[in-house]
Amino acid sequence: MTHFLDQTILEIDELTVKRKDRILIAGPCSVESQGQVFACAREVAEAGYKFMRGGAFKPRTNPYSFQGLQEEGIRILAKAKKEFGLKIVTEIIDVDHFPLYRDTVDILQVGARNMSNFQLLKQLATFNKPVLLKRGYGATIEELLLAAEYLLSGGNSRVILCERGIRTFETMTRSTLDLSSVPLVKKMSSLPIIVDPSHACGRSDIVIPMALAGLAAGADGLIVEIHPNPPKALCDGLQSLDFSKFRTLVKEIQLLKPFLDQIDVAGENT
Amino acid sequence: MTHFLDQTILEIDELTVKRKDRILIAGPCSVESQGQVFACAREVAEAGYKFMRGGAFKPRTNPYSFQGLQEEGIRILAKAKKEFGLKIVTEIIDVDHFPLYRDTVDILQVGARNMSNFQLLKQLATFNKPVLLKRGYGATIEELLLAAEYLLSGGNSRVILCERGIRTFETMTRSTLDLSSVPLVKKMSSLPIIVDPSHACGRSDIVIPMALAGLAAGADGLIVEIHPNPPKALCDGLQSLDFSKFRTLVKEIQLLKPFLDQIDVAGENT
Amino acid sequence: MTHFLDQTILEIDELTVKRKDRILIAGPCSVESQGQVFACAREVAEAGYKFMRGGAFKPRTNPYSFQGLQEEGIRILAKAKKEFGLKIVTEIIDVDHFPLYRDTVDILQVGARNMSNFQLLKQLATFNKPVLLKRGYGATIEELLLAAEYLLSGGNSRVILCERGIRTFETMTRSTLDLSSVPLVKKMSSLPIIVDPSHACGRSDIVIPMALAGLAAGADGLIVEIHPNPPKALCDGLQSLDFSKFRTLVKEIQLLKPFLDQIDVAGENT
Amino acid sequence: MTHFLDQTILEIDELTVKRKDRILIAGPCSVESQGQVFACAREVAEAGYKFMRGGAFKPRTNPYSFQGLQEEGIRILAKAKKEFGLKIVTEIIDVDHFPLYRDTVDILQVGARNMSNFQLLKQLATFNKPVLLKRGYGATIEELLLAAEYLLSGGNSRVILCERGIRTFETMTRSTLDLSSVPLVKKMSSLPIIVDPSHACGRSDIVIPMALAGLAAGADGLIVEIHPNPPKALCDGLQSLDFSKFRTLVKEIQLLKPFLDQIDVAGENT
Repeated sequence: MTHFLDQTILEIDELTVKRKDRILIAGPCSVESQGQVFACAREVAEAGYKFMRGGAFKPRTNPYSFQGLQEEGIRILAKAKKEFGLKIVTEIIDVDHFPLYRDTVDILQVGARNMSNFQLLKQLATFNKPVLLKRGYGATIEELLLAAEYLLSGGNSRVILCERGIRTFETMTRSTLDLSSVPLVKKMSSLPIIVDPSHACGRSDIVIPMALAGLAAGADGLIVEIHPNPPKALCDGLQSLDFSKFRTLVKEIQLLKPFLDQIDVAGENT
Repeated sequence: MTHFLDQTILEIDELTVKRKDRILIAGPCSVESQGQVFACAREVAEAGYKFMRGGAFKPRTNPYSFQGLQEEGIRILAKAKKEFGLKIVTEIIDVDHFPLYRDTVDILQVGARNMSNFQLLKQLATFNKPVLLKRGYGATIEELLLAAEYLLSGGNSRVILCERGIRTFETMTRSTLDLSSVPLVKKMSSLPIIVDPSHACGRSDIVIPMALAGLAAGADGLIVEIHPNPPKALCDGLQSLDFSKFRTLVKEIQLLKPFLDQIDVAGENT
Repeated sequence: MTHFLDQTILEIDELTVKRKDRILIAGPCSVESQGQVFACAREVAEAGYKFMRGGAFKPRTNPYSFQGLQEEGIRILAKAKKEFGLKIVTEIIDVDHFPLYRDTVDILQVGARNMSNFQLLKQLATFNKPVLLKRGYGATIEELLLAAEYLLSGGNSRVILCERGIRTFETMTRSTLDLSSVPLVKKMSSLPIIVDPSHACGRSDIVIPMALAGLAAGADGLIVEIHPNPPKALCDGLQSLDFSKFRTLVKEIQLLKPFLDQIDVAGENT
Repeated sequence: MTHFLDQTILEIDELTVKRKDRILIAGPCSVESQGQVFACAREVAEAGYKFMRGGAFKPRTNPYSFQGLQEEGIRILAKAKKEFGLKIVTEIIDVDHFPLYRDTVDILQVGARNMSNFQLLKQLATFNKPVLLKRGYGATIEELLLAAEYLLSGGNSRVILCERGIRTFETMTRSTLDLSSVPLVKKMSSLPIIVDPSHACGRSDIVIPMALAGLAAGADGLIVEIHPNPPKALCDGLQSLDFSKFRTLVKEIQLLKPFLDQIDVAGENT
């Protein structure tokens, strides 16, 4: 039996993330303005967490939808990073953007639409940055692990997997969060896996229970969308937690912690 | 906000099941022999739980597969009920069997294959027995609630819903356990909902984490398959917990209890 | 290689349906009135076809939806049968209705919701009537064949299978018509299989091309919904062909006939 | 009503492909050797068709699988192009390969795994080459049309869509060919759409009926995999037609032609 309590899941600069910490990455879907990003960053920092997400280059299904603030978005993230001492997680859709990302971005996210973009993965394997690899909504668990193999075999072992739901016939949620991927990945791989209940559900009202369920299933952490004013969000407002709900989530994760610590020691839950 | 702690989810004879108890129904897929059933019953009783499941009339996809011990199976369940003081949950596939079930069966289970057998539901509505209604593997959450409506509108309000997974393209699990149904049902209905990780996963090695995830998502309980010797089971052996794993599950549910109690009081998790 | 041209797919009374005829069953979703049924029946008869469908006892997802005219519906179908010399196809949801069906109904339809209602299938196996068995929207092709086995092993060999679509994430159609089931069933079974593009698509505007595709894939026939005034239909109006579109379908099937005859002789298409 | 008979679906150099021709693209999954490619090319040319497919740079799910002959593969395709006077269709996974493709490749294929790789699409929009855009196996029809919009809005109007199946719970086929996409695309767009029964089915024994079904549903053409010796293929042998089966397909398409011509004139089938 594996005892997880001291397992290191990620090292970035001076920061070592242990499994027992259950990494929590929070932030807006898209970077919209410095005010919006700073509000989120303050919220994350005050909750005692270290990672903020925020999209600058957005891969949008519809070419006429808002494509993100792009370079300006990265600059805003850089300011927030400095101001609040946070680590930055943002999606990379083109390796040509890497020079722009180098000094600001701490974890490169590969989105669900690009999980099978193997050229991108091969190139990301050569950069010295951790990668957060999201499961494609049409991809099996085995394919997620094989996509990670493009990074690992290319020399980048700092990979975090992310379950974000798969497409099914159910219409009340945007995707169906497949939490069975969590214990299955744990059985087949030593890679950490986190859960994104925001994109899976596509509606904020069930994000908290699904986040807690993800942790109870054995996940190493969460990534959630928050926004100071979800109804005004330029992107994915329906699924973003407002700050009040985010604080509830943080509080309930704390309530779950004694259980998680015991499970880690026992190693039974995986 | 709803405070769940004192909510009654079921009354049977002298027994009142509260949400805070998180009902746990355990037992073999099929009744195979008195020895097998008594072993499971002793296990359930010693764990302090009250409900045993066991199939006597089995609806099998293949007409040439084992169809259950039928009348003999019900007789064995009756003996176990008396010997161990347990309540019995078993599937009903034909109302003509009801006289045989009347004195022995405490909760009538409607299986996934019959969720849309509305004639059966209409008739079950007229019997004075609680019904455990499983979600069809091709059914939406809305359809599960509407199927329950056949029972409710027919006069039977003692209905427990059960999430048991839906069919998707993922092949590592038999079905994909859709835990988002749990908080969604809680938002739309006052009916209790429990989770069946055994049938959803189709493999025993991830039943425990998925069971815990179901409770963390807000479920009112669980139904799991156990067997004294899973490799020898006539049906669903791959997904049955042996007694050692069952005790681990029971222990971990206890570890999760303080969290669940706090969530119930806060009412935040639903 | 099999040569299909003379294969008998069904015998009812004095009528022998050959594969080369490609059975076409048409009619309304629900029997609503004698006028509506007679209008459809006249349309079917004038097109030179022999089978009319029409639902009298409707299994509805929502218990508060229109449940069909029931006994009165069967009486109307009986009149149309006599007046227009048609064979009647209607769904049976309860064997207790069989006495009412006996003299009027020529083919008993088992709907998608009841494909896995094995008790119903076992009982239908004992009646001397052909059965049209629709694939459940959550069922695999193998499960469709095994469900048919409940009829065959029970002594009823007059079974027609029906592909009517499965549930997927695609939302532009009600279900996804899985035409690959047609050649696969042909490879694995000697049972005839027809295609229901109306229920699969859930929209009348693509029923004609999907019907033709079904025949080109090797199907033995079609079942389609027609209505004298689809926007006024009590049930499934969106997917019903009006009479003008039905005549187009009939004409295009005629255009496809020379191709189908050649394929049958060659036996290549299956 | 649209009359399709004279509609141009593609112009390449001196070649104009009309809808009435129903483009047929055939060739091996992967370029393996000059002998293999020449054998396929001869087969295509002798059947009177103009387009050969063949993969040189293969996007493989597993990084340790055969990744294609790469540059050498393109050189072999160039020789076959010259020797047999064919147009070449091959997948492009990285725009850096474009200089290598420029003189040899006539249609750039975007595979299912890259349908949502919008950076790739944006760059392909700027090259003066037609693009064959395959539907992602997790993508809706609407998303396929929006992905095409990345090419169209970027200035490339020579886009051919391709239905190649979506992922569902059915396991007898690799994907479920969703032929309803054909008439739906025809209703919503003026872009041509072809069908790939080989990848959808993942088994050669039902490719012919599904190809014919695709044409009957209104498709503008087909893309199929052929191989001189399928059991020896390095990739996708199970789904490749041998030359005997390919000739049967060609012959049966000819048998279907009179029907297709009449449908095009009538315009009813779309």
